[in-house]
Amino acid sequence: MIYWDHNSTTPCAPEVVEAMQRYWNEEYGNPSSSHIMGRRAALAVQKAREQVGSLINCSPPEIIFTSGATESNNLLFLGILLTPRRERDQIVVSAIEHKSVLEPARLLKEHGFEVIKLPVSRAGVTDLEASRNLITDKTLLVSVQAANNELGTLQPIAKLAAFAHEKGAFFHTDAAQALGKVPFDVQSVNCDFASFSAHKMYGPKGVGALFVRGGARRWPWEHPLQGGGQESGLRPGTSNVPTIVGFGEACKLAENTMADTISFLRKLSDRFILELREAVPDVLLLNDLHGSLPGTMSLIFRGIPADVLIANCKTINISRGSACNGAIGASHVVNEIIEEANLRDSVVRISFGKDSSAANFQDFFNIIKNIILRSEGNE
Amino acid sequence: MIYWDHNSTTPCAPEVVEAMQRYWNEEYGNPSSSHIMGRRAALAVQKAREQVGSLINCSPPEIIFTSGATESNNLLFLGILLTPRRERDQIVVSAIEHKSVLEPARLLKEHGFEVIKLPVSRAGVTDLEASRNLITDKTLLVSVQAANNELGTLQPIAKLAAFAHEKGAFFHTDAAQALGKVPFDVQSVNCDFASFSAHKMYGPKGVGALFVRGGARRWPWEHPLQGGGQESGLRPGTSNVPTIVGFGEACKLAENTMADTISFLRKLSDRFILELREAVPDVLLLNDLHGSLPGTMSLIFRGIPADVLIANCKTINISRGSACNGAIGASHVVNEIIEEANLRDSVVRISFGKDSSAANFQDFFNIIKNIILRSEGNE
Repeated sequence: MIYWDHNSTTPCAPEVVEAMQRYWNEEYGNPSSSHIMGRRAALAVQKAREQVGSLINCSPPEIIFTSGATESNNLLFLGILLTPRRERDQIVVSAIEHKSVLEPARLLKEHGFEVIKLPVSRAGVTDLEASRNLITDKTLLVSVQAANNELGTLQPIAKLAAFAHEKGAFFHTDAAQALGKVPFDVQSVNCDFASFSAHKMYGPKGVGALFVRGGARRWPWEHPLQGGGQESGLRPGTSNVPTIVGFGEACKLAENTMADTISFLRKLSDRFILELREAVPDVLLLNDLHGSLPGTMSLIFRGIPADVLIANCKTINISRGSACNGAIGASHVVNEIIEEANLRDSVVRISFGKDSSAANFQDFFNIIKNIILRSEGNE
Repeated sequence: MIYWDHNSTTPCAPEVVEAMQRYWNEEYGNPSSSHIMGRRAALAVQKAREQVGSLINCSPPEIIFTSGATESNNLLFLGILLTPRRERDQIVVSAIEHKSVLEPARLLKEHGFEVIKLPVSRAGVTDLEASRNLITDKTLLVSVQAANNELGTLQPIAKLAAFAHEKGAFFHTDAAQALGKVPFDVQSVNCDFASFSAHKMYGPKGVGALFVRGGARRWPWEHPLQGGGQESGLRPGTSNVPTIVGFGEACKLAENTMADTISFLRKLSDRFILELREAVPDVLLLNDLHGSLPGTMSLIFRGIPADVLIANCKTINISRGSACNGAIGASHVVNEIIEEANLRDSVVRISFGKDSSAANFQDFFNIIKNIILRSEGNE
């Protein structure tokens, strides 16, 4: 089974599985308990908080563990929604944000906020000139992803953060796709908030974080989630110790291996595109490979609907875009960057990972060539 | 290390760890992906949904997987909060609910709802007579826990659900402490919503569920969490496949072994109390053992602050009440049922589990006797 869909989710690294192992039924204490097993569990969570903080260059209390980036994004937007309105009522997002930003933004709009969408280029990069004008002194929050999940395009978030701050607005970035894959430093970006998921970077599903500059005591809004006071009161519920430990380990691994992995994936995708263009000259590459996440390619095979290609790839797992968009219809990202309606259904995403190999390239090309041959035979 | 704090959290059953194992880095697909690995992951989630549904006697689509009962409770209360107000503006909860119900209720109160607290007896049982009068035709939701986390007392939820329905209100129960420990059947209780956590019943931390009668399409409120449409749109975010699988396995185990475990724990705690009263005659037992969760005992050792006892129990992990209340001060539950201020700081909770044994009873009694001897020596 070949898996070329690492932007959807990744396998846990063996080191991550190993790190979690003893927390299932040996060190299973609740970190909120004052007894010894509780305190040992709290130390394990603290170590993970340091590991995540180290990767993104923040202090550990600025890390609020959540169930993943979708929850982190919702926590932020719900905090705004539940806080009495002030003079600033504009929320600015890019047009190609993940749904876990766009949909909470829509909820804010339903509750009276103005939501402004920043335009993107055909390659999926947020338009800085337009952004500068659309972020105003009425803007409360600017939220732009660090890397797009479907195209892999890296966004100019440090510049957008500067635009936001010039106008006195907060800046948030959904960095679920960037964390552990490309350098991401909250000090360089100068973001106020950032969302992460462990399962996109060889950590476990069901865990992630929200970076809050200055920690929970600097949180400017209502706490939308209420309960037992965990995570400095911002994210109640028994701490998910084993997967938090796994997330920490994944961050440590990423810190140690990122440079090598980036180099490996850049070479692999360059070679893939080179060989693909020889095998299937009519292919379109939507994203600029070197302005994107290493190993992510958004491709159009003209005349081949993505669903047909995926159905023919019995042993090669590729995607038609974001898994979160489900199986039906072109995504909002594809609709945003592709004008020609007949091409929109043919977009597929390939996202290589550490375990990907050129050994499978020809198998994939042959599948495409066979579909083309069959369709020519039918004409 | 002796662990007598199973109401705080439990170790994963070995079967649960085993069931999760292959989902970390073999079957690691995202259930929202349309490729083969995605579809296989979706089948695993579906199987778990059936296992949870089987334990509580509902249909699988009525199970919405969450990160745990705290999130489930918040999802419900936030749904109400974000929905335009109608004629019903009363929320009724018991005075000894978990904080993940009381605090979201407080948030509703801040936003204009009336929150009514049902009184409880000194043994921690909700007063039915008073409840009948306090639930009115202005009540939108009644939320009473199935079993109290600190006292273990089982609540008359089927009767309270009937009271709620007589007045046209919804009934919710936080069943985090009850699931898998005592029979809990959503048809017998006739609740509209119920919250669960896997880690209280030998499943993993970080996963739980909200039962929604009729499934997501019968959800009467706004969806507070927005994103990729997972869990029928009620709980977005990449499905936490491994721990969902673990939760399903824990439910299957509970279904198969509950009767034996109940019998074992009832005998063990009866014996514990009998021997304890011989060793430390001055002990007070707050809860009615056979009207409580099997194995849960709330105890007062007069003159021994809970913190002192816990600090002396170096190899025996017991609790001063809910872990979610942290280490400081008596809990709201203790304050509710104990009038004498001088006793409130001496409440400890012992909650046995499947691995508990009478072999450690004397060690515990000796610790208490030594503290008493030392304090008498100091007088």
